[in-house]
Amino acid sequence: MKISILGGTGPQGRGLALRFARAGIEVAIGSREAARAADAATELGALLNPAAAAISGHDIRAAVAQADELVILAVPYSAHDATLESIKDLLVGKVLIDIAVPLAQGDPKRVAMPAAGSATEAAQALLGESIPVVGALHNVSATVLNDLEHSINCDVLVCGNDLAAKEKVIELIRKLDVAAYNCGPAESARCIEAITPILIRLNISKKVPFTHAGIRICPPDAH
Amino acid sequence: MKISILGGTGPQGRGLALRFARAGIEVAIGSREAARAADAATELGALLNPAAAAISGHDIRAAVAQADELVILAVPYSAHDATLESIKDLLVGKVLIDIAVPLAQGDPKRVAMPAAGSATEAAQALLGESIPVVGALHNVSATVLNDLEHSINCDVLVCGNDLAAKEKVIELIRKLDVAAYNCGPAESARCIEAITPILIRLNISKKVPFTHAGIRICPPDAH
Repeated sequence: MKISILGGTGPQGRGLALRFARAGIEVAIGSREAARAADAATELGALLNPAAAAISGHDIRAAVAQADELVILAVPYSAHDATLESIKDLLVGKVLIDIAVPLAQGDPKRVAMPAAGSATEAAQALLGESIPVVGALHNVSATVLNDLEHSINCDVLVCGNDLAAKEKVIELIRKLDVAAYNCGPAESARCIEAITPILIRLNISKKVPFTHAGIRICPPDAH
Repeated sequence: MKISILGGTGPQGRGLALRFARAGIEVAIGSREAARAADAATELGALLNPAAAAISGHDIRAAVAQADELVILAVPYSAHDATLESIKDLLVGKVLIDIAVPLAQGDPKRVAMPAAGSATEAAQALLGESIPVVGALHNVSATVLNDLEHSINCDVLVCGNDLAAKEKVIELIRKLDVAAYNCGPAESARCIEAITPILIRLNISKKVPFTHAGIRICPPDAH
């Protein structure tokens, strides 16, 4: 199995590449500059033991072409729409996993949602319904992802309009030893994406006794 | 200390009345019919041991008048705006705690937010900025609240535009032995209120091994 991670040289992309490669999934990371992506792939590979799957580096379009089916969009939100426009033709037959959180300019404690309602809905509108978009992995701290000594302190809330695509993404994410839940249609991204700035606010506030807070679905307490 | 709970005869209101009275806080429950509120107060009191604070029943306006400062609005969402209009004059000098979740008609797995963005923002707009509105307690299952044998499996995400009011509400909620966090301005209610239908969806889906899911803020995992 081979996935691609666009924006794979950023903190979120690097952490995801490490975690997926360690779980045995080949990763093609994409960046605007192929050389930068190749350097990052080499660096990341050196952090993993030889049993891990390979990480390779490419320009954005070449990275998309490498994916069997699943393409993770982890570019900065400012490049979200332009990146999608530039790869739309290559995404036919694939599934886009959108992890974007539209943080307000200059204030990571707030969202500034696009007119479509959320980044996931904007991506789905831009790509058209024949290319399934699945929103996921919004609420996982990049620091946590890159800290391979620890497990991920977050459940993953997954949304999108195509159930089969969501099920594939949930299966992928569970390979990281985290719980992943189908949280409904793309519209649910209005909530799920907006959880991230709330976590950032808590981390900044010093009102919690930790940084890099995550969010989890909890069963009723036992006695 | 005495609070009032409007809609105190509904499942959420009853559970909150029980929990707060058990924690030593007097509760005046309000309902459209004073007799129904009085009956509910008697029933609820009988479920608690004699060390608990008193629960009394009143019509809506009389219940508001009983509160020292904090008034919880727990009426069905369909009665949200009309109830606020009917008590606006009595809320001067008090703090309204809005627990409403604007679920879509006929589909508790979705929200249908009002034009203001969320119920909390709609309440704040209706009451005017001089009466602070604090959104809280949206994500706690009524079944969990009413099950006094178990603790509450949920953190409480609190939002609103008035910091002093939020701090009072956080202090109140912590008396229920749950964590409560300041999650920013009233606008954060667009996210917080929308978490509830996601939890309802999970509970209905049978994809989680439990019902009455809650949501919690989690620290990074230890080794």
